[in-house]
Amino acid sequence: MRLHELLQKLSLSGEAVEDFDVRGINTLIDANADEISFFDNQKYLPALEKTGAGAVLLSSKYVSHLPEGVQAIVTDEPYLKMAEASYYFQKPLIRPEAGAPQIAETAQIADSVHIGHGAVICEHVTILSGAVIGEEVEIGEGSIIHPNVTLYNDVKIGRNVTIHAGTVVGSDGFGYAHTRTGEHIKIYHSGNVVVEEGVEIGANTTIDRAVFGSTIIHKGAKIDNLIQIGHNCEIGENTILVSQVGLSGSTKLGRNVVMGGQSATSGHLEIGDFVTIAARGGVTKSVKTKDIYSGFPLMRHKEWLRLQAKIAKLLKS
Amino acid sequence: MRLHELLQKLSLSGEAVEDFDVRGINTLIDANADEISFFDNQKYLPALEKTGAGAVLLSSKYVSHLPEGVQAIVTDEPYLKMAEASYYFQKPLIRPEAGAPQIAETAQIADSVHIGHGAVICEHVTILSGAVIGEEVEIGEGSIIHPNVTLYNDVKIGRNVTIHAGTVVGSDGFGYAHTRTGEHIKIYHSGNVVVEEGVEIGANTTIDRAVFGSTIIHKGAKIDNLIQIGHNCEIGENTILVSQVGLSGSTKLGRNVVMGGQSATSGHLEIGDFVTIAARGGVTKSVKTKDIYSGFPLMRHKEWLRLQAKIAKLLKS
Amino acid sequence: MRLHELLQKLSLSGEAVEDFDVRGINTLIDANADEISFFDNQKYLPALEKTGAGAVLLSSKYVSHLPEGVQAIVTDEPYLKMAEASYYFQKPLIRPEAGAPQIAETAQIADSVHIGHGAVICEHVTILSGAVIGEEVEIGEGSIIHPNVTLYNDVKIGRNVTIHAGTVVGSDGFGYAHTRTGEHIKIYHSGNVVVEEGVEIGANTTIDRAVFGSTIIHKGAKIDNLIQIGHNCEIGENTILVSQVGLSGSTKLGRNVVMGGQSATSGHLEIGDFVTIAARGGVTKSVKTKDIYSGFPLMRHKEWLRLQAKIAKLLKS
Repeated sequence: MRLHELLQKLSLSGEAVEDFDVRGINTLIDANADEISFFDNQKYLPALEKTGAGAVLLSSKYVSHLPEGVQAIVTDEPYLKMAEASYYFQKPLIRPEAGAPQIAETAQIADSVHIGHGAVICEHVTILSGAVIGEEVEIGEGSIIHPNVTLYNDVKIGRNVTIHAGTVVGSDGFGYAHTRTGEHIKIYHSGNVVVEEGVEIGANTTIDRAVFGSTIIHKGAKIDNLIQIGHNCEIGENTILVSQVGLSGSTKLGRNVVMGGQSATSGHLEIGDFVTIAARGGVTKSVKTKDIYSGFPLMRHKEWLRLQAKIAKLLKS
Repeated sequence: MRLHELLQKLSLSGEAVEDFDVRGINTLIDANADEISFFDNQKYLPALEKTGAGAVLLSSKYVSHLPEGVQAIVTDEPYLKMAEASYYFQKPLIRPEAGAPQIAETAQIADSVHIGHGAVICEHVTILSGAVIGEEVEIGEGSIIHPNVTLYNDVKIGRNVTIHAGTVVGSDGFGYAHTRTGEHIKIYHSGNVVVEEGVEIGANTTIDRAVFGSTIIHKGAKIDNLIQIGHNCEIGENTILVSQVGLSGSTKLGRNVVMGGQSATSGHLEIGDFVTIAARGGVTKSVKTKDIYSGFPLMRHKEWLRLQAKIAKLLKS
Repeated sequence: MRLHELLQKLSLSGEAVEDFDVRGINTLIDANADEISFFDNQKYLPALEKTGAGAVLLSSKYVSHLPEGVQAIVTDEPYLKMAEASYYFQKPLIRPEAGAPQIAETAQIADSVHIGHGAVICEHVTILSGAVIGEEVEIGEGSIIHPNVTLYNDVKIGRNVTIHAGTVVGSDGFGYAHTRTGEHIKIYHSGNVVVEEGVEIGANTTIDRAVFGSTIIHKGAKIDNLIQIGHNCEIGENTILVSQVGLSGSTKLGRNVVMGGQSATSGHLEIGDFVTIAARGGVTKSVKTKDIYSGFPLMRHKEWLRLQAKIAKLLKS
């Protein structure tokens, strides 16, 4: 879409902006000259100052921070306008132009399985009944997809992955921009989910696709039933998530992290390698030092045990 | 079914009761002269006193509160008898008499989709593989139903609604009457679920149908993954429910409420417009004043922060 | 598989061990002479001392505890070796040799239903669209299986059971042995799930199959939506689990237990008959005495109320 056409759709003026073919929207860091980006958080000022985007949605006071050659699209509501723009860059849900799927001869595909256009199903894959494999999905050698699993478009599954029944990989993340009158404008998610080799995912778990880029489940991670993994999360190698864990968007777990049942995290934080979060732990800040943590607010498990002793004493007083 | 026949099935005497054709069971407020109702909670005495039901299951001491012309069906266990009676008024699961579904020409229906008798699928609806659309369901213009979604019979979906994969709308609520020996007698749910325009519902979420009437999701509400919405809940316009929230039955949320991840409510309470419940908040009483609330038991978020400071101090003492 | 062949695959020496045909792996208690077992926890020493297994994986210091005639397979990592061995004893996912399913004439099977080899569907069963019934599953008279339910291989469903949409019964439990370098070796689950007469299970719930033996849901239990029941759990008669409850593996609930919404248990514990766990209660030790319990850590509900009063006072101080 031409930039001027897009700006018109967004009710923004294109007067001061040179027209070009916009291929998509991306983050300040990843955008190329044929993409637009947006700036709405001070935290990303360094990224703004070196963005390679063709144009950036931002408020007037930050225009001076743009690198030379990057055009400003001035607006008081850059995040909202990005959300509105995302609508025009969604990939189609159904893509006949991607052609018939490629299915290896040794793959076993049960009845009532749907395999989308352009999908690639490798050798010795087993797909059981009722599974739905979206457009341009790839499933690596030896993987097992159990009944009624849904893999949304563009999901990439590595070798020897097992996904249990009813699990959904690649649904849209929970991302909206909010208008001044309280409506929520959907951010169409152009990213995907990448699941690496040897991962096992339990039943009725949900893993959302990235807004831009990929939600990533690294090699050997084991994910139990009824778990929520938000958009743009990254789960480290051999990390273990026990049932009913919830991870908010853009959270990054290191390798061999263990999160106990019903524990959860806020978004945009990091949990370091080998950290254990006990059952029900609620993580609201990054946790880097290897140890066991408990409680909500989160504390070292030893402290939590001391706290429980104090509370027991209080109860007796 | 004739009332006398029903009473016989319920092991109740019909001697003092005039026979009539019973069309169904309903609440005291909503029942008409061709329906029966039940009274088992003092709270509903005003409703009893003006019910339009043809007959009411109730204990002998409340008979005098019935309006003229409403018959009493006297029993010590009105709730249990209502549950037993509900069995005889269930609508059939499969309804060939409703005829072939009506599917608009511009609707896109993938393979392995089931569309029930009497269903109405409007223009520009997209239904992806493995979705099951029950009997007499309606789906409004432009809505998208992702793979492996189940819409139970009688569910009504408005325009431009998106429902993500694996979500279940309209399953029976968790309602039982209990016998003196500890068995649980199922209350067959004759209500439905109504989802209004512009709602988005995430993956593997469950929304139960109403016992009587409708569970309602109002316009523009956004509901994340793995959320439980109990029977007869009402979710206000533009309200946001983050992943793994749980709402017990008959709870009513106002407009632009925000409930954080893993927060939950008891049943039969109200949350006012623009209230925010922080992640993990547990709501056990109605909350009317606009503010942010946290904790379990719930308190204003400011108080919760003060409490955490006190606890931190206690821990150091 | 011959024992010597198995030991070679496990990189264990077979020199001191007499060869025999190994039919499977089982617990110390249940193993027969044609099965192997493993010992890795002091707690099971009495079981070791009377096991009927053909051979047992164990460390050298416990060899003297074996009953006469039971062979020792000495290893420093008996649990890990058991996990590795479990791979060789999995039953095949697809079993054409079990023959066509037997479906009673009065059973109603919708379109897009998959019924596995050797399955037995009794009289008056209703199976709705998109349900997947695995190999050698049995479904008792009058049961209703709603859309998009998955019953894994070998699951046994009793009479008059209702299973709501999207629920998964019989997925592999979350069981792994861990290597010294932090990888997780899957324990293939050879057990199943047994659901007795009159049970109702809500939507998008997950019930894992047993490692050995059966996960059991006894007669009349009522299980709500989005619940996790771990491998080898046993749920007592008429027990009630409210939405989003999570039970870790091998936990045993008595009869008429009630667990409130979002409550949870650790593994390997017992909850006695008629015990109530309030919403959000977190059970980490066995609870035997009939009462209402709350909180995390769990306490009697009366104490929890007193604790909340103390906390409220602390907040005012």
